[in-house]
Amino acid sequence: MILTVTLNTALDITYRVPALTPHASHRVTEVTERPGGKGLNVARVLAALGHDVTVAGFAGGDTGRSLHERLAEAPHLTDALTPVDGATRRTLAVVDSATGDTTQLNEPGPLISPAEWAAFLDSYEELTRRPGTAAVALCGSLPPGVPVGAYALLVRAARAAGVPVLLDTSGEPLRRGVAARPDMVKPNADELAELTGSHEPSRATRDARRRGAHAVIASLGAEGLLAVTPDGSWQAAPPVRVHGNPTGAGDSAVAGLLSALAEDLPWPDRLARAVALSAATVAAPVAGEFDRATYEDVLGRVTVRGDG
Amino acid sequence: MILTVTLNTALDITYRVPALTPHASHRVTEVTERPGGKGLNVARVLAALGHDVTVAGFAGGDTGRSLHERLAEAPHLTDALTPVDGATRRTLAVVDSATGDTTQLNEPGPLISPAEWAAFLDSYEELTRRPGTAAVALCGSLPPGVPVGAYALLVRAARAAGVPVLLDTSGEPLRRGVAARPDMVKPNADELAELTGSHEPSRATRDARRRGAHAVIASLGAEGLLAVTPDGSWQAAPPVRVHGNPTGAGDSAVAGLLSALAEDLPWPDRLARAVALSAATVAAPVAGEFDRATYEDVLGRVTVRGDG
Repeated sequence: MILTVTLNTALDITYRVPALTPHASHRVTEVTERPGGKGLNVARVLAALGHDVTVAGFAGGDTGRSLHERLAEAPHLTDALTPVDGATRRTLAVVDSATGDTTQLNEPGPLISPAEWAAFLDSYEELTRRPGTAAVALCGSLPPGVPVGAYALLVRAARAAGVPVLLDTSGEPLRRGVAARPDMVKPNADELAELTGSHEPSRATRDARRRGAHAVIASLGAEGLLAVTPDGSWQAAPPVRVHGNPTGAGDSAVAGLLSALAEDLPWPDRLARAVALSAATVAAPVAGEFDRATYEDVLGRVTVRGDG
Repeated sequence: MILTVTLNTALDITYRVPALTPHASHRVTEVTERPGGKGLNVARVLAALGHDVTVAGFAGGDTGRSLHERLAEAPHLTDALTPVDGATRRTLAVVDSATGDTTQLNEPGPLISPAEWAAFLDSYEELTRRPGTAAVALCGSLPPGVPVGAYALLVRAARAAGVPVLLDTSGEPLRRGVAARPDMVKPNADELAELTGSHEPSRATRDARRRGAHAVIASLGAEGLLAVTPDGSWQAAPPVRVHGNPTGAGDSAVAGLLSALAEDLPWPDRLARAVALSAATVAAPVAGEFDRATYEDVLGRVTVRGDG
């Protein structure tokens, strides 16, 4: 079982409108909803790959109830979300049917109380110590009320339980989390620059390792991944530039890294899978889903160069 | 008890953002939610005036659950919404904090099945025949699946039960509903022109009566109301032009007419109350609420001229 943590879960809602005009009234032609937040997106891709996944984090209110209902319908997914008094936030994407452009409106999310945070920690501790837990992913931003050092605490608990842990966040939570020595971090170029002060990926990646991460896998958009690990360094790139919607490509890369780790694959295979899943997510018509045919086509054609 | 019918109920959500920019990402700074749809707005004003109100219509899904929860908290309101399988629609108002301008996004709402419509009709029939039912308001648009002649059926059932019935809708549902001879219709200038083909309010109002409505109370925006009734004709106007947000002013006028009817007041008093409540709604800082001080101030100063 792989455990994904999403402290700032969301109900992702997509509205399709003919064209968004400020200060006008719009009839929404299509409404779709699904569980959201980075860790839940990672979990969906892992489940689609056939891995058993347990999702931890918070859910509350009527939007939280929607989350529970949808997770219950999904195969391979176990819902271990901790109940909270506040309502899970909605994140709304308004898509112009004509242009395909998206306008995003994100609610702030509920305030997590100290008692709710403590209940989550108990549940997390128990889940990481279960015999079948193969890896943990800690994903996304922190909701109000959760201490900024939260990820450092969660990284240490996973390491104490002997479970490999991947951290995918940004800003101060990333800075503090890295110092707790996670097995992997997967920053994008902006997050890496914010962490290290360097815009030069190879230098910044090495710097991020010095700050505590055992392996740094930097996602460089269409150019693929740059990995600096205890076993060597690699660059993995897709065979062609894939056009489409990059939303969720980073979450798919995390799912690729974790699933390949759980299957005990070597680094080049992990990176190839992460790159292929990212490309297949960009190519998919629905944001955050991956296109299986593209995945299988790209997987064998990813270039992995390195010194491992 | 006054009964209000809202076939196309909604969960009204308001997002406040610093400024809405198409194709950008926005952090929502404030989220508010309340039961919506015209009949529920009328019910809220009636309850604020101290009348006991029962609300009928449909509710389903997690948004419907939010509706039930909020109605349960409101004094003077009895929830008689019929359960449906589909989810109650959301109507989202995105307010620019800088300018106060609003962008509206309305979901289409769930498909009502023939069995759900039949269950609603049973409940409606029972509610109109209760000894304490003083008046019925039929408000707003029809959701998918409800027959276009729905309001004609509901008008006839109310009249058969001996309960005065007010119809406030538009388009073909209004045209068919009017032919069933409701006690009152409350069209605005556009709805009246669409029904009669005339843009001249006095002529159009008389034409609407010939089509079947016993009394026609046309709302003419800031100019007030024009009423043509079996007891005479009146024009009622506020003492000054009130500035603000006209959202919900028509629903407040309906609440004014119904509450005054339930109190057996004569037409000039009904119209004065409707005009004062409309003005107090325009003046209120929150859309669809009314400002009690403005209501009490305006009420005694409404000009009612006529031949009744």
